[in-house]
Amino acid sequence: EVGWTDLDLRAVATAKALAADAVEKVGNGHPGTAISLAPAAYLLYQNIMRHDPSDDRWLGRDRFVLSAGHSSLTQYVQLFLGGFGLELSDLEALRTWGSLTPGHPEYGHTKGVEITTGPLGTGLASAVGMAMGARRERGLLDPETPHGESPFDHHVFVVSGDGCLQEGISSEASSLAGTQELGNLILIWDDNRITIEGDTSISFTEDVLGRYEAYGWHTQTVDWVGDGEYREDVDALAAAIQAAKDVTDQPSIIRLRTIIAWPSPTKQGSHDSHGSKLGAEEVAGLKTALGLDPEKSFDVSPEVLAHTRALGERAKVERAAWEERLAAWRAANPERSALLDRLVAHELPAGLDEVVPTFEAGTSIATRAASGKVLNSLAGPVPELWGGSADLAGSNNTTMSGEPSFLPAHRSSHEFAGTEYGRTLHFGVREHGMGAILNGIALHGLTRPYGGTFFVFSDFMRGAVRLSAVQGVGVTYVWTHDSIGVGEDGPTHQPVEHLAALRAMPGLSVVRPADATETAAAWLAILRRDAPAGLVLTRQNLPVFPRGEQGFAGADVDRGAYVLLEASSGTPDVVLVGTGSEVQLAVAARETLEAEGIATRVVSAPCLEWFEEQDAAYRESVLPADVRARVAVEAGVAMPWYRYVGDAGRIVSLEHFGASADAATLFREFGFTPEHVAQAARESLAAAAG
Amino acid sequence: EVGWTDLDLRAVATAKALAADAVEKVGNGHPGTAISLAPAAYLLYQNIMRHDPSDDRWLGRDRFVLSAGHSSLTQYVQLFLGGFGLELSDLEALRTWGSLTPGHPEYGHTKGVEITTGPLGTGLASAVGMAMGARRERGLLDPETPHGESPFDHHVFVVSGDGCLQEGISSEASSLAGTQELGNLILIWDDNRITIEGDTSISFTEDVLGRYEAYGWHTQTVDWVGDGEYREDVDALAAAIQAAKDVTDQPSIIRLRTIIAWPSPTKQGSHDSHGSKLGAEEVAGLKTALGLDPEKSFDVSPEVLAHTRALGERAKVERAAWEERLAAWRAANPERSALLDRLVAHELPAGLDEVVPTFEAGTSIATRAASGKVLNSLAGPVPELWGGSADLAGSNNTTMSGEPSFLPAHRSSHEFAGTEYGRTLHFGVREHGMGAILNGIALHGLTRPYGGTFFVFSDFMRGAVRLSAVQGVGVTYVWTHDSIGVGEDGPTHQPVEHLAALRAMPGLSVVRPADATETAAAWLAILRRDAPAGLVLTRQNLPVFPRGEQGFAGADVDRGAYVLLEASSGTPDVVLVGTGSEVQLAVAARETLEAEGIATRVVSAPCLEWFEEQDAAYRESVLPADVRARVAVEAGVAMPWYRYVGDAGRIVSLEHFGASADAATLFREFGFTPEHVAQAARESLAAAAG
Repeated sequence: EVGWTDLDLRAVATAKALAADAVEKVGNGHPGTAISLAPAAYLLYQNIMRHDPSDDRWLGRDRFVLSAGHSSLTQYVQLFLGGFGLELSDLEALRTWGSLTPGHPEYGHTKGVEITTGPLGTGLASAVGMAMGARRERGLLDPETPHGESPFDHHVFVVSGDGCLQEGISSEASSLAGTQELGNLILIWDDNRITIEGDTSISFTEDVLGRYEAYGWHTQTVDWVGDGEYREDVDALAAAIQAAKDVTDQPSIIRLRTIIAWPSPTKQGSHDSHGSKLGAEEVAGLKTALGLDPEKSFDVSPEVLAHTRALGERAKVERAAWEERLAAWRAANPERSALLDRLVAHELPAGLDEVVPTFEAGTSIATRAASGKVLNSLAGPVPELWGGSADLAGSNNTTMSGEPSFLPAHRSSHEFAGTEYGRTLHFGVREHGMGAILNGIALHGLTRPYGGTFFVFSDFMRGAVRLSAVQGVGVTYVWTHDSIGVGEDGPTHQPVEHLAALRAMPGLSVVRPADATETAAAWLAILRRDAPAGLVLTRQNLPVFPRGEQGFAGADVDRGAYVLLEASSGTPDVVLVGTGSEVQLAVAARETLEAEGIATRVVSAPCLEWFEEQDAAYRESVLPADVRARVAVEAGVAMPWYRYVGDAGRIVSLEHFGASADAATLFREFGFTPEHVAQAARESLAAAAG
Repeated sequence: EVGWTDLDLRAVATAKALAADAVEKVGNGHPGTAISLAPAAYLLYQNIMRHDPSDDRWLGRDRFVLSAGHSSLTQYVQLFLGGFGLELSDLEALRTWGSLTPGHPEYGHTKGVEITTGPLGTGLASAVGMAMGARRERGLLDPETPHGESPFDHHVFVVSGDGCLQEGISSEASSLAGTQELGNLILIWDDNRITIEGDTSISFTEDVLGRYEAYGWHTQTVDWVGDGEYREDVDALAAAIQAAKDVTDQPSIIRLRTIIAWPSPTKQGSHDSHGSKLGAEEVAGLKTALGLDPEKSFDVSPEVLAHTRALGERAKVERAAWEERLAAWRAANPERSALLDRLVAHELPAGLDEVVPTFEAGTSIATRAASGKVLNSLAGPVPELWGGSADLAGSNNTTMSGEPSFLPAHRSSHEFAGTEYGRTLHFGVREHGMGAILNGIALHGLTRPYGGTFFVFSDFMRGAVRLSAVQGVGVTYVWTHDSIGVGEDGPTHQPVEHLAALRAMPGLSVVRPADATETAAAWLAILRRDAPAGLVLTRQNLPVFPRGEQGFAGADVDRGAYVLLEASSGTPDVVLVGTGSEVQLAVAARETLEAEGIATRVVSAPCLEWFEEQDAAYRESVLPADVRARVAVEAGVAMPWYRYVGDAGRIVSLEHFGASADAATLFREFGFTPEHVAQAARESLAAAAG
């Protein structure tokens, strides 16, 4: 029994009314679920979750993920009542320009919001990542302490609706959560049988709990609908949450049967309450049903607010106890304590430049293989770096050798031995889920995750990549097999449009190194920036360029683009720009052109986003405005390059899907040859002159 | 009992050896599953499926979908043995330039291949679409005939591996298949517990059949592994398939427990056999285990081939019976018979220009609403057109009013009454599954599907959209809420980069009409082209331009871009190009500029892909080379526009994510105003002059 007083009940009624009022004032939004879930949210925020209204980044806090992000008021109202930083005026400013209460919860924008949600299913999938991240962090910092006694033990609570459970991304992540036995994850599914098109009978008739049982989850039902009168039985919900906590080797789902918008007089149980304002009359009726004054809006009694904001005082007690445990842990673990400080600050260890391998000029190695070597070199000094692949570990070169898998030990296979605190992640063939999980791991705060798949399947995870970019979290996508260089697997496996499509995304750095040396520099630049990046790597071997000799510059990857080889005259007639595996074509074409007396500069451009960040003088030094003869060469669509080559430029690109054949044949047949690049240069010179 | 003779057993052994030989010869590929699944594939092709080797487009055929597309040899070998057009030389040319046997099955490339597969899970999801399409087609042509007796009754067989079932897209589609009670769908899941990273214990431990039971599927297990000796019990598999057929109100999954690559001597049961050649010694060992000559490669005995190619004769008998039934149906249904001919020819009815609504100049309507009106106007004359939404029907305006939902009648809701042959599709919140299902419907052959969601969630379905484009199938994506015009829902719901990202995709037409008139023309152009298209529509109202008066041209959408408003002088100083909701800004800016004496042309560019198809003279007439002052305006990233505006051009674009506020505020704050467009024009004029 949670023992709610009359004040608690009034606070819940107030929460419902505030949700209705806020939507009514702006004229649009999602009141229904915020109304019916108010008791559950209040229970979590006031009675169950461990958190501190005065410090929304407290390490010891439970995490709350509102996967049903459209119901942002479910969270905003509690952040207001609990005193996390929102005030009544913020609720009044819902969904308006510059407010702290945008339509969907936004990470980094509103205190107490752990994650940006809205695209359905993604919050749940990222919550799986948070639960995994929490375990890994505990393993790095405090593996010996018994479960439940470490300052790094806490829970991840998720609230989802029907829509979240229809999305495939939640299926992917939930299945993996079962395999991973994430006992620290508790999902409350708001089973109200309503989505935007109305009754879920038309599209969602599966036995959800049966499905979750099949995934290996612990399942419970709390039924507020029942057969007779609707009853918001928070004691039953609290008991279910306690039972979920008691199960430490399975994630838990609690099916909470509700009536959307209850007790709204005419719109309860209807999708009319889902995504539109209720209307003045209905809001008044709701307030009457709640025992509130139907005439008043945004009405919060001082006693109610004083009661709910007493959460801060209660939190202080719990926090003090936690701080004591942390202090004891720090005293007993001085090295780990220093590590914790470094991880909290998101500072990398010093000296990484000396740690990464160098690659011998004239040798040949695929950038995916070089990436694997770099990861292995970072394994020791950067313990917060971890990751894996969507069932392509060997192809993506994402495994740090000798590191155990992150896996309940009894799941170990012949190929991969695991421990619960292991490092190598196995996502299965689940790219979208992987992306969301990586976001969740990064958002959990202390570690730096990466995940690999074939570049073409960046399409499958684009929704999650966008959320990395929207939130600006330090996730690294390792995308190998980056062009028609994939070869025999054919068009379904050969990316053509993906460089363009991902460069179009604000906030994402797309990094395509030209050789192994650039690959090492790329990893360091990515880690230092601590922001979303896609590392785009070849399947096939590439020559390692000499560096600082034979005219070749060092790998200035951090500036995005740089002069790799200057024209012999020092003043270029034409500039050849390439990325990745096509830079070698530019280098070879330069030789031909120089032999013809054409002064030719080669620019390697591993990351156009970073190049754009440079000042105008630097950019001009790489691509001088008065050198209008320019050729870009990249084994993908030309779209990103018009900007750089200009009116007189030429682009050696691929404007159609690939084919099934060996890579060498494909490059030749599709025109990716030094001869073709040289010819394009001559044409561009003619255009610039003419 | 299927009663296989020694010749059948030798044929299966030959199939296994051919799979090993083909991979061995080219040096790469996926032999393991093709070896272990050979008996199942042979059973399907030789004993179970109804098809005609002499006519791979026979309307009466069962459909076969190899969702595990990497195992293309599973299908190629049967297409060879059954005489569907592949010969031994084609198997010898596996995965080489120009061959009929590419790495993954490609629709339109190899006879007998119904669908391009390879990206895991997509084949299974599209098979759900095929099963739905089959039902709709039957409903259009032969609804009264009892089940099992119509010439339009047949089955869709799918073979998937573990990977397909891990992908969220298959979860989405499978759940919907349960709701839809697709009794004509039979999935054989090759449960070999091996994916690329080895044993599935590390990432895939769920109870798959439990999950499918929860979806409402009929589930069975056929265990060839057992406790003792491995036994390829085809009789048990045949019995299970018969049982699956007998269940007519549920889709069926048959879990087939196999050992990958069996009886390969040392690599059976190992992921080493999954995606690499076995090696000469192992291939020899395999042949020895199969009772074949280990010295011989691509060895097919004439008796075996004669036996398997007798399939053609057996098919003739069945086909003749079917043709009789079809003839009887034609005689009894002359109108439907004519409809069938039209549908088979993929010809639209005449006179559609007169059918679609016209919109009054000066009124204001969102293009999504205009699209809804167009769809309603086409409902009668174009019965093959059908579709729905991923739970956003009201927002996407995808419902043809008065048409029943495609739904088992007992699933009907208060909002949507359904029949098994209904027209309105309800996909649930499952964008990726929707895309694959639309592909399956279109590939099934006779109908023209469309599906809607918010434009921002095109990200969630990008893998399926790419497969529309790769295959060139006539699927229309209705993407509404196409910019920051979404308003209050904020950055997670506001597309910014999506126009660029989708235009980057070869083979997809991205169509963004500027007003209701263009929307009607866009629908007609899309239907006439019968190729993949995304129709990108506003949430917010847009003015309907006058047409053929006040200087405004007609809506020449089919040419992709056209002069909407000529400069008053007839010779433009500057050209303003816009799409969708931003064309009105160009029109308003033109007024300002003309008042300043700047001759200004406005070009509306609803589809850049179609514009690129026009001849050079037309393109020059729209964007004359000597008018270097150009401005593009579009509420998205600038990337696609550099090509069109050139060195002196300016682009009014959005290079960051949106925000939560009303749409008018966002357009103003982010610079989408006539003033800003006019200013960009002045800057471009200066640049062109300077």
